[in-house]
This record gives sequence, C-alpha cells and structure tokens, in this order.
Amino acid sequence: MSAFEHYHPSQYSPYIGGHFQLTPHALDVFSPYSGKPVYKTYLAGPDEFEIALQAACSAKTVMQDFPVYHRYRVLMQIAEAISAHREQFATIMAREAGKPLKTAFVEIDRAVQTFQIAAEEAKRLPGELLSIDWHPSGAGKDAIVKYFPIGIVAAITPFNFPLNLVAHKIAPAIAAGCPIVLKPASKTPISALLLAKIIDQTDLPTGALSVLPMDRQTGNQLVTDERFDLLSFTGSSEVGWEMKQRAGKKRVVLELGGNAALVVDQDADLQTAVAKAVKGGFGYAGQSCIHTQRIYVEASRFDDFVALFRDRINDLVIGDPESAETDMSVMINEQHATRIEAWVNEAVAAGATLIAGGNRDCALYAPTVLTNTDKQMKICAQEAFAPVVVIEPFSDFKQAIAAVNDSEFGLQAGIFTFDSRKIYYAFHHLRVGGVIINETPTFRADHMPYGGIKDSGLGREGPRYALLDMLEPKVLVMDHNQTL
Amino acid sequence: MSAFEHYHPSQYSPYIGGHFQLTPHALDVFSPYSGKPVYKTYLAGPDEFEIALQAACSAKTVMQDFPVYHRYRVLMQIAEAISAHREQFATIMAREAGKPLKTAFVEIDRAVQTFQIAAEEAKRLPGELLSIDWHPSGAGKDAIVKYFPIGIVAAITPFNFPLNLVAHKIAPAIAAGCPIVLKPASKTPISALLLAKIIDQTDLPTGALSVLPMDRQTGNQLVTDERFDLLSFTGSSEVGWEMKQRAGKKRVVLELGGNAALVVDQDADLQTAVAKAVKGGFGYAGQSCIHTQRIYVEASRFDDFVALFRDRINDLVIGDPESAETDMSVMINEQHATRIEAWVNEAVAAGATLIAGGNRDCALYAPTVLTNTDKQMKICAQEAFAPVVVIEPFSDFKQAIAAVNDSEFGLQAGIFTFDSRKIYYAFHHLRVGGVIINETPTFRADHMPYGGIKDSGLGREGPRYALLDMLEPKVLVMDHNQTL
Amino acid sequence: MSAFEHYHPSQYSPYIGGHFQLTPHALDVFSPYSGKPVYKTYLAGPDEFEIALQAACSAKTVMQDFPVYHRYRVLMQIAEAISAHREQFATIMAREAGKPLKTAFVEIDRAVQTFQIAAEEAKRLPGELLSIDWHPSGAGKDAIVKYFPIGIVAAITPFNFPLNLVAHKIAPAIAAGCPIVLKPASKTPISALLLAKIIDQTDLPTGALSVLPMDRQTGNQLVTDERFDLLSFTGSSEVGWEMKQRAGKKRVVLELGGNAALVVDQDADLQTAVAKAVKGGFGYAGQSCIHTQRIYVEASRFDDFVALFRDRINDLVIGDPESAETDMSVMINEQHATRIEAWVNEAVAAGATLIAGGNRDCALYAPTVLTNTDKQMKICAQEAFAPVVVIEPFSDFKQAIAAVNDSEFGLQAGIFTFDSRKIYYAFHHLRVGGVIINETPTFRADHMPYGGIKDSGLGREGPRYALLDMLEPKVLVMDHNQTL
Amino acid sequence: MSAFEHYHPSQYSPYIGGHFQLTPHALDVFSPYSGKPVYKTYLAGPDEFEIALQAACSAKTVMQDFPVYHRYRVLMQIAEAISAHREQFATIMAREAGKPLKTAFVEIDRAVQTFQIAAEEAKRLPGELLSIDWHPSGAGKDAIVKYFPIGIVAAITPFNFPLNLVAHKIAPAIAAGCPIVLKPASKTPISALLLAKIIDQTDLPTGALSVLPMDRQTGNQLVTDERFDLLSFTGSSEVGWEMKQRAGKKRVVLELGGNAALVVDQDADLQTAVAKAVKGGFGYAGQSCIHTQRIYVEASRFDDFVALFRDRINDLVIGDPESAETDMSVMINEQHATRIEAWVNEAVAAGATLIAGGNRDCALYAPTVLTNTDKQMKICAQEAFAPVVVIEPFSDFKQAIAAVNDSEFGLQAGIFTFDSRKIYYAFHHLRVGGVIINETPTFRADHMPYGGIKDSGLGREGPRYALLDMLEPKVLVMDHNQTL
Repeated sequence: MSAFEHYHPSQYSPYIGGHFQLTPHALDVFSPYSGKPVYKTYLAGPDEFEIALQAACSAKTVMQDFPVYHRYRVLMQIAEAISAHREQFATIMAREAGKPLKTAFVEIDRAVQTFQIAAEEAKRLPGELLSIDWHPSGAGKDAIVKYFPIGIVAAITPFNFPLNLVAHKIAPAIAAGCPIVLKPASKTPISALLLAKIIDQTDLPTGALSVLPMDRQTGNQLVTDERFDLLSFTGSSEVGWEMKQRAGKKRVVLELGGNAALVVDQDADLQTAVAKAVKGGFGYAGQSCIHTQRIYVEASRFDDFVALFRDRINDLVIGDPESAETDMSVMINEQHATRIEAWVNEAVAAGATLIAGGNRDCALYAPTVLTNTDKQMKICAQEAFAPVVVIEPFSDFKQAIAAVNDSEFGLQAGIFTFDSRKIYYAFHHLRVGGVIINETPTFRADHMPYGGIKDSGLGREGPRYALLDMLEPKVLVMDHNQTL
Repeated sequence: MSAFEHYHPSQYSPYIGGHFQLTPHALDVFSPYSGKPVYKTYLAGPDEFEIALQAACSAKTVMQDFPVYHRYRVLMQIAEAISAHREQFATIMAREAGKPLKTAFVEIDRAVQTFQIAAEEAKRLPGELLSIDWHPSGAGKDAIVKYFPIGIVAAITPFNFPLNLVAHKIAPAIAAGCPIVLKPASKTPISALLLAKIIDQTDLPTGALSVLPMDRQTGNQLVTDERFDLLSFTGSSEVGWEMKQRAGKKRVVLELGGNAALVVDQDADLQTAVAKAVKGGFGYAGQSCIHTQRIYVEASRFDDFVALFRDRINDLVIGDPESAETDMSVMINEQHATRIEAWVNEAVAAGATLIAGGNRDCALYAPTVLTNTDKQMKICAQEAFAPVVVIEPFSDFKQAIAAVNDSEFGLQAGIFTFDSRKIYYAFHHLRVGGVIINETPTFRADHMPYGGIKDSGLGREGPRYALLDMLEPKVLVMDHNQTL
Repeated sequence: MSAFEHYHPSQYSPYIGGHFQLTPHALDVFSPYSGKPVYKTYLAGPDEFEIALQAACSAKTVMQDFPVYHRYRVLMQIAEAISAHREQFATIMAREAGKPLKTAFVEIDRAVQTFQIAAEEAKRLPGELLSIDWHPSGAGKDAIVKYFPIGIVAAITPFNFPLNLVAHKIAPAIAAGCPIVLKPASKTPISALLLAKIIDQTDLPTGALSVLPMDRQTGNQLVTDERFDLLSFTGSSEVGWEMKQRAGKKRVVLELGGNAALVVDQDADLQTAVAKAVKGGFGYAGQSCIHTQRIYVEASRFDDFVALFRDRINDLVIGDPESAETDMSVMINEQHATRIEAWVNEAVAAGATLIAGGNRDCALYAPTVLTNTDKQMKICAQEAFAPVVVIEPFSDFKQAIAAVNDSEFGLQAGIFTFDSRKIYYAFHHLRVGGVIINETPTFRADHMPYGGIKDSGLGREGPRYALLDMLEPKVLVMDHNQTL
Repeated sequence: MSAFEHYHPSQYSPYIGGHFQLTPHALDVFSPYSGKPVYKTYLAGPDEFEIALQAACSAKTVMQDFPVYHRYRVLMQIAEAISAHREQFATIMAREAGKPLKTAFVEIDRAVQTFQIAAEEAKRLPGELLSIDWHPSGAGKDAIVKYFPIGIVAAITPFNFPLNLVAHKIAPAIAAGCPIVLKPASKTPISALLLAKIIDQTDLPTGALSVLPMDRQTGNQLVTDERFDLLSFTGSSEVGWEMKQRAGKKRVVLELGGNAALVVDQDADLQTAVAKAVKGGFGYAGQSCIHTQRIYVEASRFDDFVALFRDRINDLVIGDPESAETDMSVMINEQHATRIEAWVNEAVAAGATLIAGGNRDCALYAPTVLTNTDKQMKICAQEAFAPVVVIEPFSDFKQAIAAVNDSEFGLQAGIFTFDSRKIYYAFHHLRVGGVIINETPTFRADHMPYGGIKDSGLGREGPRYALLDMLEPKVLVMDHNQTL
C-alpha cells in the first residue's frame, strides 16, 4: 500500500466521475467542538452531477464485466489503505464530526472490515442451479439463475458514521459490479472524500464512483433521476419515506432511525448490563440509529441499576474529541443540542424526573438520564439521537416487550436474560430487525443483516444483504430435448 | 377431498374476511365469445373492504404462528381440490375469459403445481446461522436469522390467467404466513371466487384471505392503505408504475408486461422452432405477458421459417372456447380486438407487410403475422397482448440481440441455437428477467424465478422467490460470554 | 391409490429385481408375543442375490435419467399407499415385531412423512453455480456443480423399526436416482415386503428396488461386492464397524446404537420431564437406538423425579401388542429378554438398587429402573436396547454433561433446562449427533439430520442428509474466453 | 509480515507438536536434476509420532474454540508469508522436486490462494436453521444445525505439488478447527517444512500442526491409529484403496490418480486447443494427477492437430529447473523415467507409433507422443505420470466419450467444442469428477470441488468441500412448548 500517499490537505475536492475537481461553490466544514471551519470542500451543481451520472452510465458495462479477482483486489486494497490512513481518518472524524478518537478508531476498523467482507462476498455472489422437470411440461429442461448488477446506485449517507456508513454503500456496490454516485452528509463530507482519494488509486474503473457534496436541490436528482436503478438512503425517517414516494421506478432501500430499547430482566448481571448500556446510551453522544434510548429494568433491580448507571456516567471523560481519553464529546451542532435540551425540559415539565445531566454548553449536552416519563413524550416516542436515556421499571416481562413495541420504530432491541423462554418470546414478539441478547440494541457486526421495520426502514445492509438489493436475478432455462 | 362439494352456481359472492356475502353492487360477467352475461358476482364497496382488511389485521398473529404442518396441509388440500374441480374451473375460464379448454386445463394443472410447490416451500423458509466473531468485537457471539411474515398482502391480478396468477399471490402468502386481500380482474373474477370457495373449506384461519371484486376506486385502497405491508400487482405497465408512487411505505412487487422476442439462429431445428413459436404467438390469443411478439430469424432461414409458420397457423383450430378441439379463440373483448386491429392497420399503412391474418370478427382477431415492420410501430414497441407476431430477418447474431434489447420492456427472451458462445452472449447481454434456450420466451415453469426488468416490473414470482418479498428477516444475536 | 389392492397373505415372497419370487429356503417369522409362527417368507440365496444386483446394474442409467416429476410421483404414491394400508402395516408390526399398535401407528405415519419429504427433496437436489475467476488464471471461466446418483446402494436394516428405517434407505435412494438392494431384518421382514408390494405398483423402473431376506452369509455380499457404491447399514455397533473394514472401495454409512442420556436440571418442569422420560425409556420396550437409557437428575429434584417416574410406570398398560390399549409389550425374543435380565441382576449383585421392575416372563421384561449404579456396569456402559432405565442424581451441571459423555457412544442427548447458558454449554460440550432441549434423547423428526459420532456411527440420515451420501458432485467448468 | 525472517538453511527439522526438533534418522533429499543431495531433514520415529499425536489431542479443545477472527488471521498471515517467501519456495521446489521455476511460481501463487480461500471459508462454515413442526409431533420445536470440527486429521501428501497439496490439507483443517499431523512426501519434504516454519510464527495454537517426514512403517500409524478422526490421503491409487481397508473407524478421503483424457471436436479452435494440450501434457513433466494423458481428436482435424502439436513441443525449453526459461525438466527420479521408457517401448513394440520423443537421459524423459495405441496398453490404461501423451482420432462424438470412460479412473476430462448438445452429453455421460469445456482436464481452480470417482478417489477437495469432511453436524432441537 506504499503507493498511497498520505494526504493532509485542509481542502478536499469532490470526486466527479473519476476526477477530483473544484467547483464554484465552496462549502466550509465546521468543527462541532470548536465551532470553527476546519475543512473546505465544494458543492457539485447540476453540471457536475450530470458529469458524474454520465460517467456512471459509461462504467456500467465495464463494471458488469469486471472480473471477480479485480473486484476482490480493489476492495482489499481499499481495506488496507484505510488501515494505513487510520490516524488521518481519526483526526478528520474528530474534527468534522466531533467524534472522539477512541470511537473514531472503532469506526475505522469497522470500515476496514466492511470492505474486506465485501471483497469476500464478491467471490460468492448468489447463483442457483435448478431442475425444471418438476412437471412433464418441463421435461428435459434445467436452469441456472445468475445475479447481475442492477445498474447504477444512488447513495445518500448521514453525518454520524461518516466513513463506515459510506463504506456500507460503496463496498457492496463494487462487489456487485454497480457504479455508484454518493452524496455524503454536508456536515461531514471529508471522511468520504478521503476515502474517494484512496479508491481513486485503485484499479476501479473510471466513473464507477463519484462522491459529491451537494445542496439538497441538486441531491434531489439522486432520488428522481430515472437513470439510477437503486436509491440507497441512510438518514432520518421523514426524509426517507418521502423520498420513496418520489423515487419513480427505481428500487429503494431505507436505513432510518429509531428509539431503540433495552430490557434488563431480573436475572441479569447488572455490572455487565450497566457497562454496556452506558456505552450504548452515550457513545458518540447517542448519535447512532441504534442508540440505547429506552431502558426497561425489572422492578426489583431498578434501584441498583440506576445507582450503578449513574456511577458509570460519572466515570465518562467528556471533552475534546481530539483527546485520546475522551469518551464523549459534543453533538453535531448546537442546533441539535438545543433541540434535545428542549425535549428534556418538556419532559421534566410534564412530570419526568431527571436522574442525571440535563445541562448544555453550546453543542455539548451532558449525559442525561430520565425516569417517570410517559410514552407520548418526545424523548420516548421520537428518535432522540442525543446522549439521553430513559430508564423505567417493569414488573412483567411481556409488558416490557409490549412497551418496547409501543413505538413507530422497529430497528433493534436488546435483552439481558438467561431464560430461554424469555429469549424465545422476545425474538418472536419484538417488532424489530434485530434482537440482541445480553447486549444492548446498539450492537452491530458489519456482516450481519442490519435494518429496521415499521418506520425504521426498508431492506437490510451488511454486505451480503446489501448486495442482494444491488443484484438482479436472471434465469437461463435450457431445453435439452434435442440430443445428439 | 370428498369433503368439497362441487359448486355449479352462476352466482358467486365475494369472499369478505372469511365469509361469502352479497353486496348491493352486482357485477355481470360476460362471455367474450358469446357476448352474453354468464356469471353474476358483486362488488365490494368501502365497507366490505374495511371488513376484509380488519379481518386480515386480526388474522396476522394467528397466521404468523400457524404451524408449518398446518400451512402444508392447507396448501395441499387446495391443490387437491383444484384437481378435483378441474372440469368446473375449465368451464368457468372458457366462459369468463374465452380461454379454450385445452389451454384452461394447462393453467389449472399449473395452479395445482403452484399450491403444491408453496406447500413444500412452507417447510423450507429461509433461515441462517451465523458466527459473529469475525472480529474481536464479536467474540463469544453468534446469531440466527429467521424470516417472519411481513404482514398483510394486497394483491391485484389480471384477467388472462384468472386462476394461476391468483394462485401465485395466495399460495406464497399462505406459505409465508401472511393474510392477503386479493382483487381479481373484474372481467374474470369467477375463477378466483371458486378458488375462494375451495380455500374456505380448509383450515386456513378466518380472515387470512379475502377475494374482493371491486371498482377501481375502492380497489385503490389496496395501493394506499398503510395497513398493508406489501402490494403485489400483476397487470399493465402504466398502472403498475403509477401505483408504486402512491404505495406509501409498503413494499411493492410489480409483474408487468412486455413485447417478448424470440431469436432463431442459423443452426436451429426449424420444425421445432416453428411449432413452439406458433404456440407462443397465438396461445390464448397472445394474451400473455410473455407472448412471443417479435421473432428474429437468421436471414438464410427466414423464408423457410415464414413458410412453415404460415402452414402451422393454418392448422390452428379457431372457434368456441368450450370446444375441446379449439386452439385459439376470441380476445377478452371487442375493444381489445379493435385496438389491435388498429395497430396492425397502422403498421401496414406505414409500410409493413401482412403475411397472415389481419381480419377481425367481433372479439375474434385472426392469427396475424407481419414483416417489414419498423421498431417504432406500436405493434413492435408496445405490448400487443394479442394474436399478432412480427417476424424479421437478421444477419448478425449480436444485432439480433441488440434488436431484442431495443425495447422499453425486459421480461423474457427465447433463443434457438446450439452454439455455446451465442448462448453465453445472449445470457449476458439480454436485458430481461429470463433467457430461454431452444424454447420461446413464453415458457414458464411455476417454480422458477419469473419477472422482468426495465418497464416490465420489479421483483420475482415463483413461490420460493415470491416468498422472499413476503418475509422479513429478523436477526437474533446471542452473547455467550457469560458462561457457567 | 385405489389401484393398490389390500394384501392379506400370510406368505410374502422376496422382491428380486422387480419380481416377487419364491425361493427354496423358507423362513418362518415368529410372533415375539405368542412365540408362534405368524408369517412365512423365503431367503434369497446367491443366485437370487445375483439377479437382484444385475437388475440394479441395469436400472442405473434409467434411474439417473428418471425425471424429477416421476421421482416425485412415485414417492408420493408410496406415501399415500402406506397411509391406505395403515391398519395392515400395524397388524404386521404387532405380529412380527411385537410392537404395540399405538406405537406402530406412529411409525407408519412417520414412514409416510419420510417418503413425502424425500419426494420434495427430489426436486431440490443440491446444485451450485460458481464464478471461477477468483484468480487471473480462471478469467473468463465459470462453473456449475451438479449432483449425480452415486450408483447402487446396499442397505441393511434392523428389526426395531421394520417400516420407517427401511423407508429411510429406500426413499432417499429413489429421490437420488440410485437403485437399491435392501436386506430387511430376518426377524421382521414382512413390513418391508409389504412395502415392496406397494412400490411394485408404482412406476419405479424395474430393478431399481430389491428387498431380499437373506442369511448372513449371502447378505455379506452387500458389504463386499464392488458393484455396490454405497453400503448403508443400520444396526449394532460391532457389526457395523466390522463391515466398514470389509467394504472395499464403496462409501459406508453407519447408523449404530447408543446408551442415550437425559439430564434433568433443577429448573425443569418435572411433570413434563417424567411423562416424556417414561415414553423415552419404555416405548417399544426400549428397543430404539435413542432409547432413554441413562437419566441424570439434579440432586434436589431426584426424589421427586423418581417418585413421579415410578407412578407413571404403574400407569403403563403392558400386554398384547395387538390390543389398542397396550403401551408396552414383549422384547423381540426371549433371548434378548434373558440377556437384559442378566445385566440387571449383575448390576444389582454389584450394588445397584432396583427401584422398579426387574422381573421377566418369557420375552416380556417389566419396565425396570435402577439407581446407585456404576458407569462400568453393562447396564450403563453398553446399549441396553431394553425397557431399563438408570436414574442417578447429580449436583453440578458440568459434571452431568461429563457423565453423559463418559461413554463410547454418542448418538443423542436430552436436557431439561431453561437456562440459556446451560443450553449453550451442553450443545458445545456434548459429544453426540443431537442435543434435544426439554425433550428426551428419544426424539427424532424424520427430516432432521440424525446420526451419531464416536461408536454410534458415521454419517447422517434424514432424507436431505441421506441424499448427500447417495450423490456425487460433478463440476462443469466452462471457458468462455472464445467469444463471438 | 516483516516479522517472518527468511530462512535459507539446507537443513530442516521436522515440526513435532509445535516444535522443530532433530531426530536420530537423517534423510537426504536429492535433486532429481543433478542427482545430488540438496537438503537434509530427519525422519520422525514412533516416539516423535506419539509426541505429535498427543500434542494434537491436547490442541483439540483449543482448536474447536479458536475464534473465527483468529482462524482468519492465522490463515491470512500464512498466505502473506508464502508470498513473501516466493523466491525461496521456488528454489526449494526446483531443487527437491525438479520443478521448473515458472511452474513453481504458479504453484506458490495457488498455495497463497488456497490459504486465502480457507480464511474466508472459516467465516462461512455451514449452519442451518430448521423448523421442526412439519408434523404435529414436532409442534413448538425448531432446530439449528451447527458444524463442529471432526477431531484430528491425519494427512499424507505426494511429491508432485509439494506446497499446494500440503496447503489443501492444512488450510481447511485450520479453518475447520482440526489439529492435523501431516506426512509430506519423502522425496520433497522441504517445501512442507518451510511452510511449517511460516505457520510456527503465527498464533496457531501449539500442537495444532505437526509436519513429520516418516518412513512408511511409522507413517502407517496415520492410517491405523484410532485417535485420528479423518485420514486425508493424496497419492497413488493402489496405496490409497488399501489404506481405506485398514483405516478402522475414521473417515477416509482419497485423492488418487488417473489417466485424464481430452476430446477435441471438429469445431475446436486448434491453436488454442494445442497450446493448452501441450501445457496439460508436459507441464511438470506430466507429473500431475490430471495430466493430459489421452487426447481424442475428431478425425478430420487429426492431422492438423498432430502437426501443430509436434511444432509446439519443439518450442518447449527443456532443461535445468532452476533456469527461468525452462518449460520442462526431469522426472522425479530415474526410476520413474525408466518405468515410463519401458511403457513406451512396450507400446511401440506392440504396434504403437511414436510421433515424438521416446528418448531418455537419466531422469529426463523427452516429451513423447504416441498414436495407434491400444486401450489395454499400460500407457493408455494406467496412470503415466510422465511427459507422454497418446493422440487418437475419433469419428463419432459419443464414441469419443465412451473411449474416455473406458478406464478404471475418473478424475477429470476436457472437451473442446462449442456445441451445447455435446457439452450437455459429455457432462451427463462422462464418469469423472470434473468436465472442463474448452480447456484441458489439467485445469484446476483451487476453490472448485476437485476429486475423482471410480478408482480415482473418494471425496472432494477445494477448501469449502474439504471442510465438509473435517466437520461433523450437530443438531440442537429446542422444544418451546413451555412458554412464559
């Protein structure tokens, strides 16, 4: 990987159809921590968008025919180069996303995994061999089903995992043989642009990838332009579902948010449960789709749980994301911090009890714990995406499961119990995409199927699953009745 | 199956949430052949729709928990009962759809297959076991992925296969454990209602199936009502794509039309090719999504092919669908016959040569063959859905493939050749859902993946594939780090 | 199935290469209950064996090419005909095997299942599509892997499940397309010969099945003749392993015995556990490979378990196998009853305590329970294959698992617990083929993978798994580098 | 991988239970080209064997629990280290095996692949999720099937691919979690011992690998010792089948030899066919299990084929294996060269015509072509394992296929044709493990299923397939009838 230079610019160009190119519209990227501009990039306008899309169209055939060993090599080279740029990515994330270095390194290592897994899956695209003679009308026939790239992918990614959620779009697209045009979050485009620089050094065919910061109006074409065959969006629920309506004929995959819950049953090991719950609740200031937002604790363990939880919060190092010791830092901007502050205040005004936190300093919102809440409160019902956790007691396991389900969302849920009947009950009754036993809902392995139901989304990611949405089966039926 | 009585009414009630019930709005079903009313049924209005949908909602849990042996038994009972009612179904199809008995029997036997296959697939729903410890962060964890019913299915089916295309919605829904509300074609609802009578005699939980003839306005709720989790539509391209835009959050599967093509290469056995092509071109008066509409014949074989083809057309017995000898009969109504007449005349006026047919008698349009056509002519570019075939010569195989692809549609294509290089080329370059070698594009086995790309649709049918759209994966991750 | 007459002869001919034919060597079949001859059949000698094997050789090609729809139909016809002969099979089993009618009906229904499942699996033989271009040397190549019948199967089955264990050889052989020569147990050949009569009425190609009662010397050729491609043996451990050494080049599958154990943990529901354990311990007089022979009960529940267990034994109706009420009857012959009597007496003499039973009347050995045993005692260490159960207390779950493992055998084990950690521990540490939670080791579903490790065997049955040993993968690599 | 030093000793110790250790019995390794000793190693005796096996026994549990991420990392480290020692391995192979550098590099790159693929497969071990309620008796039950390591593998490898055939034993064993004791060929043990040095530097648990040069008597324990659970042998047919008889209870996989054939049909592109056939016939002096030994050419192309073939042979650079230009060099020793010389002379004496070659210089046997042979001649019927090719004309394709099948062996066959009917015919009628279209039978991709039928072996290699023989399924059935 020595071929890849280390880039240290503060200015990053959009990657348009295989070329890094400035545009007339500068975009300053601010540090959520310092509030100061830290990077500069440029917005693609309609012209640049058209260049990128036409390059993708041109790359369609070459990508479809791009041999497996090339796909594998490109994806592995990317994985290795991300590893080699580990420090640089971490710094960028700390600066553009306010993500503490510790947390950033975890994300970077996961992105390496994501590309590695996609490399391996490129070798193992689905394929079937079918006998067709299940009925006399099919006598002498058999078939294969081969999966071909669906075409061009339009991808939109959020600010909170500026590298790994980008990886979850690009890696399977390369594995599948699909050109991709990606719009990174406007608040955190730099991680994606550094990734583009890395990918530009590989043998990926020109035009197969564009990374374009865009204003919303231009970005809208990712949704509506019929030359795209798949829209893969990760972001907020409202935006996602509205896009689906305007997406025309293309397929749509939506990875949206939630208000993930954790159930801690009577037999749980509290030390473990609390340690993991604090991580799930306050990691990256709760700005994760599977942030542990609601915790239901069996009544007899409630007080102990809360006490331990509060202790653990006090151990959190809060501060500068660029410090190696920091556990939690600012939210993505003051506006979001102000929003969550209002939600918490509104809850308290309506009767909720503040157990910890509740105070704000610019974009920094302290780790906050509420109880005595009501399920209609925003802090319970909506996606907090903030370092706030609601803890409530329950007396009956089934009611706890019902409480988890009493939500418009359905992404993941965690359960601490060793009772196999409860595990079975939870797995069969929770209306979510993933049930995590003796872990928080915030757990994700990059190769597992990940995604939500209800308002939390449509489709699954994880390279093997994301690939399925990027591929189209084609059946070849052969009639062998004419023999030698 | 002796438990099922044989029904011979001329009046069929809608099947509303598990009950056959009259409604105030009678619907006369006409014979396309005689032009006379042959059956009477009743349209569901908003009230009946609501009853059906609420029954489906109530049936959700019981269907999710409906054991595999019950699903299997219900589906096998349906298959057996369809067999036992073979004659009655054939008569209904001949009368309501103008489908010749010969053709009807084929469809009925296929519907038996469809239910049988779904019964077997109910035992084999997908499921996965995953190691999660691909990375140290997953140490001590593993996972299973189980596929749960997605919820309630809204299904809309067309007139041309009034039994088997209904089977392709209901059978996988039962196998998956999804309640289903189905709107049969208004021109041919009786086959579906007889099927409902059969299903009503099984142990399928009440409310799990409704079959509702509806006017378009009421039927529209199948598209828009958010209580449905999947819209599965088989019908015309325009209607289908427009529905997708209005479908809200639900998943959408579209099985739409095409202008399927056949390529007959220089080495083909002409006798076989012509015999199959005549069947593909004029079976059920061409009213199939995969009707053989365009035929490209290698230039040196063109004259022979056309001559043989014309001979074979002359052998077709055309007439009363209720006669056992009839090969081809009327189109679904005079309006469609008039439409195709206009298309052919328009083509001839623009320079096309009429090789056979071209004449109409009420709803009966004679087997028609054109050549010297232009690809912009409606008869080439649009879905004919009529007993009309265009035959053109080609000199280069790649150009023939390009001609097949030069269409907005992409359902299936047939190729007659024994050259493995051409088979490979065709499979990799044809932009369709299925490539059929030494057969016409009109071939379909009920268990194979079936569906189109481009304007021909979204998703695949065939029970195993249809099931995937009716199921939702849920992952159960288990952390085993706390040991004994 | 009306085509199948009901057979009520007392004399059954061997089925030799597609023909029922007498031989010079009569074999009387005795009722274990009455001790009197109840059926007569005839032993195949070397000549008949040769005819059968040559017929199998002749049937090889036709079976390989036997279309899926034929395999399916034949297998389903067999399943239906077994159902139609339910009463007759039950009577035969009661008479030749001393199997109580209740128990016989369960076996018959399972045999129906076995054929049904194999019918379905015949449609779903494995098959793969592989990209070969994982490395530049494979550029332009792909491959399919298709599974072909391995050739001729030699099968040997035991007396205890005279129908369903025969089904587990014949059904997958038909599904795979392999001719099969089967030697049924000499004590219970009639069930297999009635099955042969049923199969003879189907369209199975002539020669594809022979059912030959044989003396051991002639039967030995099933092991040694190199024209067989697979030896599939179900029976005793000593015989099985010795056969493996003499089997020459053919594959060998061995389904042997065991001394299956059950662990009842502290949190178990005793009522359920005891009810199932009594069934597992005394069903068909314990003459099952997965007979519940050893029971380890958590010490604090031991006394209650034993008391309940003794009560339940008293409820067992013991007597004539042809009576509809009988739960348990004689062992297969007096010799085996005498053997087990000696083992129990030996154990008691060495210090074991008799809790129940211990008495014998001809071939009838009373339901017997021992405790205070030592693991070296025959009744613990060897396969009892008799209505005897050893119950011992344990204080530590891991030690209970170790006790289960302290055996030369490893077929199945049952565990009653709801603790997910214990389930995980048991699954990962038990050295057996199957771990059954909240059930006895005696549970088997016919489609699950079934078979043992250590001295209990080699390979797995259950149609989908048995099929794999009857199929041979063949890869077709295609080089597509020469294009049009 | 910079941690791995480069080893240049001329002396290599056996790798005994995790330690490199001298033994009293030196073994000189001779260069087949110079005839001089080039390396020295030491034979393991019974004591060292016992140490190795006991170490393997101790490593069983740790290997079973060795997490996937560790297996992956170890296997990838080995792959990388082989790459890093590319030159050194090539030199060793040239010296100990007389393998030309060109050919050696191909093998080394394949061994890298083999470990890489096994690394990926370690993440994807098979696993199943089954519903058990196919019948009311299974109501409320479901199951998973997990595949556990079978235990300890005994492996024996031949001289001809001293690195990659060793890789095909060790790589899947590590992926499966099985300790392995490997006996490399006594003529070429050094490649395997360098590989052991590489593996010793990884985190593979101590004792999980032993590489022991042994005399035949000691090596015999690999076959007979019951502590081994699998014997995986690659070598000659006689030795292999005889081992199977003595293997006791363990599983046996045999990868044996053949007399692979190639059919060149009338439509073949001769340039391509000849170029590949010369490579298949004379690569590594024909010392490959899938050496292209018999070539059948359609009569009308026979003369042209032979002429071109002879031309191409003349282009071969024959000589010192350590020269970068050498295409072909000596056989493994003079004894084998003498044997093949005798076979050829015998054939010529019996009427065969020598088209090229036929002369010998010590261990160097010239590229030799015969025609007018008879199928009983040793050079046709037995495994030549030498640079000799027989070319015969055929007039009917089916007869050519019959000629290929007229052999005791059945490993692979190649066919040059573009006729899809012939491809289908060949695939369905050739009695071999692999059919290679438009390539020679000598083609192998390391991930494809590879192995023979008839006398050519038992079982398949290629990591995914080899793994299956190293794993044992265990089913976990869960009864969920007791609910909350």
